[in-house]
Amino acid sequence: MLEILKKEVLEANLEIKNKGMVIYTWGNVSGIDRRQGLVVIKASGVSYEEMTEDHMVVLDLEGNVIEGRYRPSSDTPTHLALYKAFPEIGGITHTHSPWATAWAQASRDIPVYGTTHADYFYGTIPCTRAMKEEEIKNDYEVQTGNLIIRTIKEKGLDPLKVPGVLVSGHGPFVWGKNPGEAVYNAVVLEEVAKIAFMTENINSHASPICKALLDRHYFRKHGSNAYYGQK
Amino acid sequence: MLEILKKEVLEANLEIKNKGMVIYTWGNVSGIDRRQGLVVIKASGVSYEEMTEDHMVVLDLEGNVIEGRYRPSSDTPTHLALYKAFPEIGGITHTHSPWATAWAQASRDIPVYGTTHADYFYGTIPCTRAMKEEEIKNDYEVQTGNLIIRTIKEKGLDPLKVPGVLVSGHGPFVWGKNPGEAVYNAVVLEEVAKIAFMTENINSHASPICKALLDRHYFRKHGSNAYYGQK
Amino acid sequence: MLEILKKEVLEANLEIKNKGMVIYTWGNVSGIDRRQGLVVIKASGVSYEEMTEDHMVVLDLEGNVIEGRYRPSSDTPTHLALYKAFPEIGGITHTHSPWATAWAQASRDIPVYGTTHADYFYGTIPCTRAMKEEEIKNDYEVQTGNLIIRTIKEKGLDPLKVPGVLVSGHGPFVWGKNPGEAVYNAVVLEEVAKIAFMTENINSHASPICKALLDRHYFRKHGSNAYYGQK
Amino acid sequence: MLEILKKEVLEANLEIKNKGMVIYTWGNVSGIDRRQGLVVIKASGVSYEEMTEDHMVVLDLEGNVIEGRYRPSSDTPTHLALYKAFPEIGGITHTHSPWATAWAQASRDIPVYGTTHADYFYGTIPCTRAMKEEEIKNDYEVQTGNLIIRTIKEKGLDPLKVPGVLVSGHGPFVWGKNPGEAVYNAVVLEEVAKIAFMTENINSHASPICKALLDRHYFRKHGSNAYYGQK
Repeated sequence: MLEILKKEVLEANLEIKNKGMVIYTWGNVSGIDRRQGLVVIKASGVSYEEMTEDHMVVLDLEGNVIEGRYRPSSDTPTHLALYKAFPEIGGITHTHSPWATAWAQASRDIPVYGTTHADYFYGTIPCTRAMKEEEIKNDYEVQTGNLIIRTIKEKGLDPLKVPGVLVSGHGPFVWGKNPGEAVYNAVVLEEVAKIAFMTENINSHASPICKALLDRHYFRKHGSNAYYGQK
Repeated sequence: MLEILKKEVLEANLEIKNKGMVIYTWGNVSGIDRRQGLVVIKASGVSYEEMTEDHMVVLDLEGNVIEGRYRPSSDTPTHLALYKAFPEIGGITHTHSPWATAWAQASRDIPVYGTTHADYFYGTIPCTRAMKEEEIKNDYEVQTGNLIIRTIKEKGLDPLKVPGVLVSGHGPFVWGKNPGEAVYNAVVLEEVAKIAFMTENINSHASPICKALLDRHYFRKHGSNAYYGQK
Repeated sequence: MLEILKKEVLEANLEIKNKGMVIYTWGNVSGIDRRQGLVVIKASGVSYEEMTEDHMVVLDLEGNVIEGRYRPSSDTPTHLALYKAFPEIGGITHTHSPWATAWAQASRDIPVYGTTHADYFYGTIPCTRAMKEEEIKNDYEVQTGNLIIRTIKEKGLDPLKVPGVLVSGHGPFVWGKNPGEAVYNAVVLEEVAKIAFMTENINSHASPICKALLDRHYFRKHGSNAYYGQK
Repeated sequence: MLEILKKEVLEANLEIKNKGMVIYTWGNVSGIDRRQGLVVIKASGVSYEEMTEDHMVVLDLEGNVIEGRYRPSSDTPTHLALYKAFPEIGGITHTHSPWATAWAQASRDIPVYGTTHADYFYGTIPCTRAMKEEEIKNDYEVQTGNLIIRTIKEKGLDPLKVPGVLVSGHGPFVWGKNPGEAVYNAVVLEEVAKIAFMTENINSHASPICKALLDRHYFRKHGSNAYYGQK
């Protein structure tokens, strides 16, 4: 069942380990089959060293386990909320990668300080407000997803153009057209978060790049006029 | 004698090297067999490259060597003091891992800036006061243990919920239910110390997460209502 | 065609990956055959893992592809502009290496804080002004090259003595007598940028070294009186 | 000739590479045979990848090459000055390791912020004053040595108890009883420099540890009352 997607999600989970984005079991990647409305996500608390396809859990969008011997990631309700709100996304990754997590803990948006950022995120990477006590005490993981969705929608953002949000006091949730792209964007976000930290330390009055440069770099890589890479 | 524990302590010592927590001989891990009241700790000043079970020293809680050809770690009296004061702990690790050591040298508690911290430490990670001259000049290593114990007790902390303390001007002592968990918590502390440093650099007015979020994350992973990981 | 240069450029591209200067496809190295007036550069968006000589594209100085099945790097016009303006250079490398990129994002020149810098860059490493909207909107990559050239010329610098420039809001472009030297200088710039960051954090009033020390170290390694290395 | 010392010096040079203390050819280690008054140092500008015993150069204390096909390190006169001034030392290492170099570029002594420092350096690690123009213009490398010697002597330090000095605007020179110990102390200095940087960033009012703690840790590892390690 969903063998190709399960393999893709497994590889994406192993990739966040290989890229140094997680220690121990601190991260998860999922993918969705939009036709069938089924999500694949890794099992909760499984070490990357022993992870196999067998640890991939299949769920429907209401969170019912359709296949799999293990409990899914405890962050599963956040993933499901995002899949339901953003029909254009196909993969989600969550990590506690240190630089992105630090911006989340600092409760700050990451300004577009350079073209490295502009190549992949079309504008400021937003950080949510702090979660409220009632959101935390009740269906916390669902509310985490709702807060991410509200942050994207209130700012009028296209989720594929700004493919990630920092959850205040927690860390990054990042997505893409598929699980591999979600991981790619998470690695980019980590690098961008690191360089933005350095930038502000070197110049406390550093200013974001202008709209023209943001446009040029983002659309050099994305959209119908892109001219980066091979045809 | 205590073959399983010796092997466990050896592996935990090698693990702090593998995780990049120590250079040269700068760290030690011990474990205790509570039934027999015997502690296993690595020999003093042995390089991790050549460490074998033969370098594991067995002592009673008064510090008498029961088995082993080598002198035990010079920090042994600190470990013994902690085992006597905290009957619920089964393993202790001490390192000079850079980020945790920096907070210790800065004589500052690590605030709970995010869920990465809250997942494993139920509250602020305390730093002791500076040691007094008379504590240093006499049975220094015993007094180091006593100061850690006093710090935990004066703050009314449960040593398994806040499984580590920074010793001012020195570095972290971290523990757990067994040697492996002590190492795990030491690695977490190092990561948390690093991200907290970054957080304050990104936002000098960063504030700790609220009690509700601390509770949610800590108890998601610990205690009878935990729902992280497999059953 | 140009087999030796293609091999040299391929190896230089792989070297920026091996030295940890790039992630994914974020960098490019080119080389020039001055007699034939032909440039070799890597194809756009190719991963370093699968890069072979086949991905090396040969162009003339006007940007016409002479040989190669792939589209050249999107930064090719910048390289060509530099080759035309600086006849003494033989290789160029562009990366988004984090420390150099952070100085570029901070829009700051890197002061000569020490002999590590003076050994390879004969003076301050300049950062361009921000690019103007009209430069960005039109032939952006050509204008990037022109801005680098103007920065070098307006400051009266010898491009082989200050073999690199930071492009404001973007990152470093670095060159040398050949592709290998361009990569070497890019690695040096990254290290120098890192140590300069640390220096200012340790002493916010740090001052550059004196002219005599700059001269001594630069000319110890370069020019007819050099006495570093083997004859 | 001096086969054992040459092997020791070769291994010490390779060790600074293995410990991540140098890139390219940026460092050198020497050793001395006190009975014969002969020094072994690596050849200038040789890459660590291809370094063999053949690249070890033997000199007398006046700098005459006694054996070896290559030019010795350009820093050789600094090493010779130190060997002549400090008869108790047997090995010297010089690197541009980033954290120690940053303190040197910042022209600051490294305060004793913790026991990690106190375990190996008995007090503040001094930074020289900036070199004067006439020192730089004439026999620069000899004057570098003389400035290090003056710094140690004016502060009344025992060179084996404070086995290293930062040269302002340049980097660390570190020594020990033999080449291996010189490298060990250089690695310690780098780690101590890094943690001191972090310490000041975490607490801008951090204060050095007290004399009693410095004494306790230093003499726990050194001298006749040492009780660290095996007998």
